[in-house]
Amino acid sequence: MSAALLSHIRIVLSHTSHPGNMGAAARAMKTMGITSLYLVKPKRPIDAESEAMASGAADVLRGARVCASLDEALHGTVYALAVSARRRELAYASNDARSAAPALVAAAQEGEVAIVFGTEMSGLTNEEILRCSALAYIPADPGYSSLNLAAAVQVLAYEVRVAALGGAPLPAAEGVPARHEDVENFYVHLEQSLRASGFLDPANPKRLMPRLRRLFGRVGLEQEEVNILRGMLNSYGKNT
Amino acid sequence: MSAALLSHIRIVLSHTSHPGNMGAAARAMKTMGITSLYLVKPKRPIDAESEAMASGAADVLRGARVCASLDEALHGTVYALAVSARRRELAYASNDARSAAPALVAAAQEGEVAIVFGTEMSGLTNEEILRCSALAYIPADPGYSSLNLAAAVQVLAYEVRVAALGGAPLPAAEGVPARHEDVENFYVHLEQSLRASGFLDPANPKRLMPRLRRLFGRVGLEQEEVNILRGMLNSYGKNT
Repeated sequence: MSAALLSHIRIVLSHTSHPGNMGAAARAMKTMGITSLYLVKPKRPIDAESEAMASGAADVLRGARVCASLDEALHGTVYALAVSARRRELAYASNDARSAAPALVAAAQEGEVAIVFGTEMSGLTNEEILRCSALAYIPADPGYSSLNLAAAVQVLAYEVRVAALGGAPLPAAEGVPARHEDVENFYVHLEQSLRASGFLDPANPKRLMPRLRRLFGRVGLEQEEVNILRGMLNSYGKNT
Repeated sequence: MSAALLSHIRIVLSHTSHPGNMGAAARAMKTMGITSLYLVKPKRPIDAESEAMASGAADVLRGARVCASLDEALHGTVYALAVSARRRELAYASNDARSAAPALVAAAQEGEVAIVFGTEMSGLTNEEILRCSALAYIPADPGYSSLNLAAAVQVLAYEVRVAALGGAPLPAAEGVPARHEDVENFYVHLEQSLRASGFLDPANPKRLMPRLRRLFGRVGLEQEEVNILRGMLNSYGKNT
């Protein structure tokens, strides 16, 4: 999968009360590479506060389509995911956001898809949810599940981005790993150095070297790190 | 694993500019069951806007500890995860948020842990990152990676909650993890020792200490290992 699929995804905000939240939602989605925004009957129009909250995503906000109904906002889509901040007592199978994301991304390979969010106060109505293909909830704390609207958009957009990019991206490349023989030579050097300093008593070695092997073995030393450590040992040795 | 681990996690916000963001961050973390907030030198104090943005999380905000330094905020922790909205050009292995969460939760089984966020404009400084155990980035769109501070808190808190509730139980660490302040004291000792040996030239330090911080930060030092390493440094010092 690829980031290009994200252009098939639209974010739909239904009956939003606060103009600032529309701006913050625009920013949240754009950070995840989603730029298509649909607004169903916002209670108040986009205003200066929306723009301020959108920050560098004012273009997403200005490109938003204002719709008279959820059906209009979903027109042309092949899949729509309704989002709830909590599990709903509805005759509907609901998945958590993580489980729901791959199905949405798979559908985006076939056509346009939507992620649908309700009002700040009460979320989506049951009638709205039933116009969607599936329902996802964010696994919030049962004692306080009140995510800000833009925060909910952020979590879903994030999950969808990770799913679209093909799972977790690879960690940044690290340095060149040290070879086994270089690490062993370091241990020889270290042991000599600790005998010279008196910290390691050959007559009573305790478990010092095994402990140090465990420490440096755990870290996965890089070539350059071995060079630095041996340089340190040489510097200590000069004074003994 | 269980939600109880979330009580071992503190959110640290360093040098936050906008009081509203501290409130929004309090709300974001509370929705994920995390309630311990530390503020390092906020540019402006908590105010009415913070309270408004916190919504039902005003208790988290009121319970926040204001600290004079990052070290103070990390005092007593056994693991600290620095967060960046982008990959950093730092000699530090960084993982995406999803990969980073299980290690943090595993450390929370051993003691207090922290997730650390920098300023709205420029994030964490390299110096701040080097005081942490690991670095995580949010895989944002390269063209617009500017997550709002509370949105970044939301994503990390969400990942950590999912890891805490859902992940497979992790093997317990063998030893007792070292505390932040003990590791910092080891670095002070190490630097003094390397100056004394001549390996570290204060006039031309290159990147020696950051390289060594990266090495020992990666390994997750245990208390007894810190004691051994400091004993080694003392043994070298006796001969200089």
